Parts: sequence; structure tokens; C-alpha cells
Amino acid sequence: MNIKIVLNIVSLSLIIFSVFMLLPIGIAFIYKTSEIHGFLISFLITFLTGISIYFLTRKYKHEELRYREAFAGVTLTWISVAFFGSLPYLLTGALGSFTDAYFEAMSGFTTTGASVISNVEILPKGILFWRGITQWIGGMGIVVFALAVLPVLGTGGMQLFKAEVPGITVDKIRPRIVDTAKLLWLIYSGLTAIIAGLYAFCGMSWYDAICHAFTTISTGGFSTKNASLASFNSPLIEYIAGCCMLLGSINFVLYFFLLKGDFNKIFKNNEIRFYFSILLFSILIMTLNLKLNIYHSLEKSFRYTFFQIISIITTTGYATADYAQWNFFAQTIILFLMFLGGMVGSTAGGIKQLRIHLMLKQIYKEFYHLIHPRAITSIKINDRALNHEILESIWGFIFLALTIWIISSIIISATGLDIVTSISAVASALNNVGPALGKAGPTATYAPFPALAKWVLVFCMLIGRLEYYTVLVLFIPAFWKK
Amino acid sequence: MNIKIVLNIVSLSLIIFSVFMLLPIGIAFIYKTSEIHGFLISFLITFLTGISIYFLTRKYKHEELRYREAFAGVTLTWISVAFFGSLPYLLTGALGSFTDAYFEAMSGFTTTGASVISNVEILPKGILFWRGITQWIGGMGIVVFALAVLPVLGTGGMQLFKAEVPGITVDKIRPRIVDTAKLLWLIYSGLTAIIAGLYAFCGMSWYDAICHAFTTISTGGFSTKNASLASFNSPLIEYIAGCCMLLGSINFVLYFFLLKGDFNKIFKNNEIRFYFSILLFSILIMTLNLKLNIYHSLEKSFRYTFFQIISIITTTGYATADYAQWNFFAQTIILFLMFLGGMVGSTAGGIKQLRIHLMLKQIYKEFYHLIHPRAITSIKINDRALNHEILESIWGFIFLALTIWIISSIIISATGLDIVTSISAVASALNNVGPALGKAGPTATYAPFPALAKWVLVFCMLIGRLEYYTVLVLFIPAFWKK
Repeated sequence: MNIKIVLNIVSLSLIIFSVFMLLPIGIAFIYKTSEIHGFLISFLITFLTGISIYFLTRKYKHEELRYREAFAGVTLTWISVAFFGSLPYLLTGALGSFTDAYFEAMSGFTTTGASVISNVEILPKGILFWRGITQWIGGMGIVVFALAVLPVLGTGGMQLFKAEVPGITVDKIRPRIVDTAKLLWLIYSGLTAIIAGLYAFCGMSWYDAICHAFTTISTGGFSTKNASLASFNSPLIEYIAGCCMLLGSINFVLYFFLLKGDFNKIFKNNEIRFYFSILLFSILIMTLNLKLNIYHSLEKSFRYTFFQIISIITTTGYATADYAQWNFFAQTIILFLMFLGGMVGSTAGGIKQLRIHLMLKQIYKEFYHLIHPRAITSIKINDRALNHEILESIWGFIFLALTIWIISSIIISATGLDIVTSISAVASALNNVGPALGKAGPTATYAPFPALAKWVLVFCMLIGRLEYYTVLVLFIPAFWKK
Repeated sequence: MNIKIVLNIVSLSLIIFSVFMLLPIGIAFIYKTSEIHGFLISFLITFLTGISIYFLTRKYKHEELRYREAFAGVTLTWISVAFFGSLPYLLTGALGSFTDAYFEAMSGFTTTGASVISNVEILPKGILFWRGITQWIGGMGIVVFALAVLPVLGTGGMQLFKAEVPGITVDKIRPRIVDTAKLLWLIYSGLTAIIAGLYAFCGMSWYDAICHAFTTISTGGFSTKNASLASFNSPLIEYIAGCCMLLGSINFVLYFFLLKGDFNKIFKNNEIRFYFSILLFSILIMTLNLKLNIYHSLEKSFRYTFFQIISIITTTGYATADYAQWNFFAQTIILFLMFLGGMVGSTAGGIKQLRIHLMLKQIYKEFYHLIHPRAITSIKINDRALNHEILESIWGFIFLALTIWIISSIIISATGLDIVTSISAVASALNNVGPALGKAGPTATYAPFPALAKWVLVFCMLIGRLEYYTVLVLFIPAFWKK
């Protein structure tokens, strides 16, 4: 392990990141609010820390950037960005405790959207803008991570796209990754601009439109309003937001194909077909349930379903209805939908549709074997048979996600939280959804949670966001040896 | 598919089974209770049905007994034995509705122990003896099934013991399986006698001792008392019952080794070592929790933990404390412990220790790969490397169990049951535990559940008991084609 490279990656991230702290200052200028001071100090601390570490670590050979350094670098980047990102909350006085500030910052950078702030509308505009930016940066970061690091990790299914993404080879990250990052940057910014435009067109102020565009494309879920998107009282905004959350949950490699005009690869993509089937089925069942048992109006039932199901499955976490008050049938569905998540290579969290799809294929394969014991079969995706190694790494991933869910739920329940709150809050944090059920429903916040519970959830957001292995492998001593 | 063979298997089971209906008549004679009539009619219906089907189907070639016929035969046997086994409840007037009677019977034959009877002590002794017998037969049946059919199914890990069990080849079940069954019969009866003797020695009446021995060795959990084993007010009985439940949850192949004096194979068995580690760890944590938060007496905390943890993990379901009233930490642990179950080839339900052990090995293997990317590794059990085929069938099993748990929980929650009750009741049924949490806690019964919920749980008990694939493959049309 070359610690210098790791710290160099982190320092570069901090420098770039510190620049974003200047944006809320602009907002504060425009709206003449008082938080300039806090952001300026935060910027200085972050920038100076970044630049000092950079100069201390810049002398290393580029060839030594191997996957080990990448794992450690990515994890440490998220941890430290959340640390420095929590400074504005503390220094502007928006949040009083470090635990709360770090929770809010980590929730932002992991695009989770869980919050400890119950009344966001009393906060200065610069702070709310900052919350949006943390998610936007986090979303961009995770897509780069998914396309650059995950194919090496091998547990994701992103290795299937290795050939499509420039700059990736089996165990080295080449400088060409910069080209990929630039292209992604353009796509990501372009989509954000389109979404902001749509929101503004539907009647949002430009400020709200941009803040919500940040947290929509990143499937983050922070809002500038206490009632989230419901506060705009516009069915049109709900439908548009639903569609835009989907945009963030799609594999960004598919946007490469789109730019290349290679529509065939999009339509024939197994994961997107599976994803939309699951979505359609869930929306159908839930609409029926709400129509029959809760709202009676078909349009309202459909709209609430459309928005909430997409928000949960894309792991965004906006809410226009308090589903913690829906019937148990709806809540049980929502609890398990949290685990699905969006597509691989997207800003969405969760186990991801591809892995769920492969899991179901594995179940089916066993049935097939019982019926045709001598048949030789393989599991295919996009017409390509997957080898045992890839499959087993995916099964390992799913088992690890489950095991961590179980252990964390047990730990959180030890702080006195009830079972539904414990298991749903952990599911929500691991899958980067945001709100959960019980005491962590969409109208509640995590503020009253015990500090231990908050820190467990912070850890869950981090490992869930970085696909478990990236973070947890760092806890194995052998990983650090040459 | 040769339907004649299937029906022949079922008819033979029914004939043997009907003979057991005569035992409660003996009990009724001894205690001069009134239920003789009901049992006699039940016996006649069952025996005559069995014998008629037998004569209609007896002409078939033995060589045609292949695994397909075995699957269908086993499933149909459990379904019909539960049907005829529900007759005594109905004909003696112990239960009024067919749904309740079938639920109680299926719960017995699957050794689940979930009950719809809130006051068992007012029922005649013959009926309570019958409840015990259903579990005892079910336990014996499942061990034969595990040793004869599961190795063929391949999802269990029991194929590892194929060489040790006479009468099993890859896809045919040979007549020599009868030898195995005879030996198992002896071991099973011997253990039952020992347990009954121990219970009687500790002060139970012989009637209670035998009834509880039936439901201990089968990890069933039905009791003749409303307060289950707590009603005997004897710490000694609690400790002994704890140890005896463990006897039922051990792979019966290990008893073969014990009889052969091959102790090495027992001590070096990976699964038993893993099983006891999990047990010790759970008991340690739970004792600490109860000592610190609930009972304050260390002995009481340890005893309640020892009994309850073993009862849950062996999927027996006796209770000497109402754990649905313990703190959320304890309840969350219990919820997830339900899934573990005992060892493969035992009377216990659940995913089974072997599969959980292999799952953790798969997780570890991925970490190892990240640290040593070029290492070639394999997953071993008892010093034998497992091939991809066996492993993948085990992963398929785990995924199927999870998927069924999720779908069934959602369906049950649609009947209006709360989330904790829904997910724990389904977990309890699938893993053949018996009691659950929430409205299905150890002091409650399933009587107030809606009929739909009861039928879903009946189905869950059946598919969980027969390891999912055995039953579910019958729903695939291609399975029935030549």
C-alpha cells in the first residue's frame, strides 16, 4: 500500500471540493443572507488542508496507482469530504453537534437524503444550497467510482461494461479515466440543467429548481421545503420529478450509447428491461392498493404511487405522501423495495437491479436443473454468459449486504429503537434511500435518534454507497501488507 | 412422471400413518376420556383410503421410481397426511373449522409447532397425544426425506453425505433406502425413549414425558401445557429440554458415525463446530442483555437465554419466557435467528447451519480475492472442496428462501397484520419454528389470524419443511412432461 498516493487522491478531491464551497457564498450574496462567514472559513480550512497534503504527497509514480490505493483513496475521500462538508453546518450555526453535522454531510455525499433537520425552511438559502450541492457532488462522484473502480472490484456487474468505458483495465486505473470523467461530467451537468429547466418551467423559482435538480439527478432527496416536493402543490411537478429521478437511476454507460446513437444497445439491455418490469408491476399493485383502501381517487392513487415507488426504488427519498401512514401492505412492500435500488453505474444505491435479476436467474436455473438434470446451462446477461467468478462475486456481494443489514439492525435495536424502525432505518441507510418507516418515516427526521444509532447509520450509508467491499476490505490487516 | 408410483408412495404413507391413529385410542382408554369415536372414524377413513389407492396403484416397476416421482410423492404425502391428520381434530370436536384443523395438522407434520389452540389443557388427553404424534411422525419423515431425497435435490449439502448413507445414488432411489430408514427408526426411537426417561426422572408424569419427548426430538414444540415447559416450574427440566432439543437438530448421519465409533468424523465436522460457535455466541450476548436490562439474576438470565435461544435456533418453538415482551434488541436477534435453523439432515427447519457457514465462506472468499487477486481458492467443507454446481445450488436455495419470505410477508401484510407480525410469522412458518413476534408471540396463538393468512402460513410451513424446490418445482408445467 502506497499511503502517499492515497493521501494525494484525497487531497486532490479536497481541493476540487473546497471550490464548491464558494457557490453558497454567491447564493448568500444574492439573497443577502448571513452565512457568508461560515462558508468562507470552511473553504479556507478545506482548501488549505487539501493543498498542504497535496504538496506533501505529490511525488509518486503514477504507475503505482493500483486498485488497493484506489479503494483506500475512495473510502478516505468520502470520509474526509463528509468531515469537511460538515463544517458549514457547524460554522454557520445551522447544526449544533458534530454528530448531527457529520450525519447530514455523510447523508449528502452518499446521496442518501436522511436528515436531522426538521424545519429546513428556517435555514438560510446558502445552507440549503449547500445541502443540494453535497448530493450533487456525491452523485457525480459515485458514477465515476462505479465506472472507474467497480469494474476492478468485480462484485458489481459493471465489469460487463469494461470494454465500453475508456481508461479501465483489469487492475490498473489508467490516466484515460480522466477522459471518461470529463464525458460523464458533461452528461451529468447537461441532465442537471435539463431537470432544473423543467422544474422552473413548471413554476418553481430558479433557486428551488436548481436545488431540486441537484438532488434529483443524484437520487439524493434533500429538499428546500419541509413538505418536500409536495409543497409545490403541482401534480405536474410530481410526474416530472418521478421521471427525472429515473434518469439518475439509469446506468450512465447507456448515456454514452445514446450519444453514440447506439439505441440497440439500450433497448436490448437486460437490466433496463428488468428494471422497468419491476417498476411497472410495483406501481400497478400499489395503485390498486391505494385506490381500494386509502385514496379512492384513481388519479391520486396513481400519482402518489408513481412518485413514491420511483422515489424509493431509485433510492432518492423525496416524499409527497406519508407512506408510514399507509396500510401495512404498502409499508411491507416499501420496506423490501428499498433493497432493489436502481441500475449499476447510476447514482442510485441499493443492491441494484442487475444483481437482483441475476439472483432470480440463479433461482430459475436450479428449477431448470431439476427438470433437465443433464442440461448444461449458464446465466446470461445481454447475450453474454457470465463465468463462475463474476457470479460468485455477485453472490458474495448480496450475502454481505444481507449480513451487514442483519448485524446493523441488531446493533441499532440495542439503542432502544423498535424493530420496524431499526430494520427499515438500516435498510434505508445501506441502500442510500433516506427516509424509512416507523420513527424514521418520511415526515419524521433522524434528529431524535441516539448518537450511537446515528453513527451506525453513517457507517451504513458509507459502506452501502461504496458497495461494501471497498470499505470493509480496509479492515482486514492483510490488505495493508505489501 | 409416473402418477401411479406417486400415488403408491402416498398410499403406503397413509396406511402406516393410519396405524398411529390407534395410539390416542389407547390413551383415551387408559384415561377414560371420550374421544375414541372420533379417532376410530379418522382411522377408518385414512386406512381405507390408503388401502384402496394402494391396490389401484400397486402394479408398477420399481425401477421407475426416479427423483421426479420422489418429489411429487413426498409433497403429496405431506399434504395428504396433514389432511387426514386434521380429521381427529374435527371429528372429536377439538377444532371447529377445517382451516384451523388443517393448520394445526400441517403445523404438526412439518414440526413447526404453530398453534390455533389457546387453551390446550381443556382438551382430552388423546388429542394432545395426537398433536405430539403428528410432530414425532413429521420429524422421522423429514430425516428420511433429508437422507433419501435431498442428496438428489442437491441444494442441501446433504449430498456431501451421500457416500455415508446406504441406498442413494445420483438420480435413483434404490430399495436399500429401506435399510437406512430402519436404522434411522431405531436411532430416532431410542433418542425419544431416552428423552422421555429423562423428563420422567425430573418429575413429569409419564404421559407428559412421552408427549414432550415426541415434540422435543422432532424439534416440533407442541406442549400439553398452556405455559409450555414453564408450567413444570423446574429449572432442571429447562436445562435438560434445552440439551435434548439440540439432539434433534443434529445431522442424523452423525449418529451413524457415533454408532460406528467414528468419533473423529463427528469432532472434525465443520458444520457442528460452526453451529456450536453460533450458539455459544448468541447465548453469551443474550444472557448479558437479559442480565443488564431485564432479569438482574444471572442464573435466570442464562437459563431463559439457554432455553429460548436453543428453542429458536433448533426451530422447536417451546417457550419458558415471553420473549415478545423482551427488549427490541432481543426481539431483533430472535427474528433473524429463526432463519438459521439446525444442521442439515436433522429434524430442525431453517436455512441450516451448513448453508449459512458456506455463505459466510463465500463472503470471505471475495475479501481474500481482493487481497490476493491472483490466488486460486475454493470453498471447502470437511476438508473437501465443493464444486461450482453444488455451491450454486446452495446459493439458489438461499435466494429462493429469501424471495419466498419477502413475497409471503407482503401477502400476509395485505390481510391487515402489522409488519413485525407479518415478517416474523412468515419467517417462523418457513423455518418451522412455531411462535413468532408481535401478535404471534409465544403466549399468543394463530387463532385470530384471518383465514387467508393461515393458508399462506400453511403453505409456508410445507415449502419450508420440504426445502422449497421439492414443492415449488411441481408448479412448473415442464416438470410433468416426459
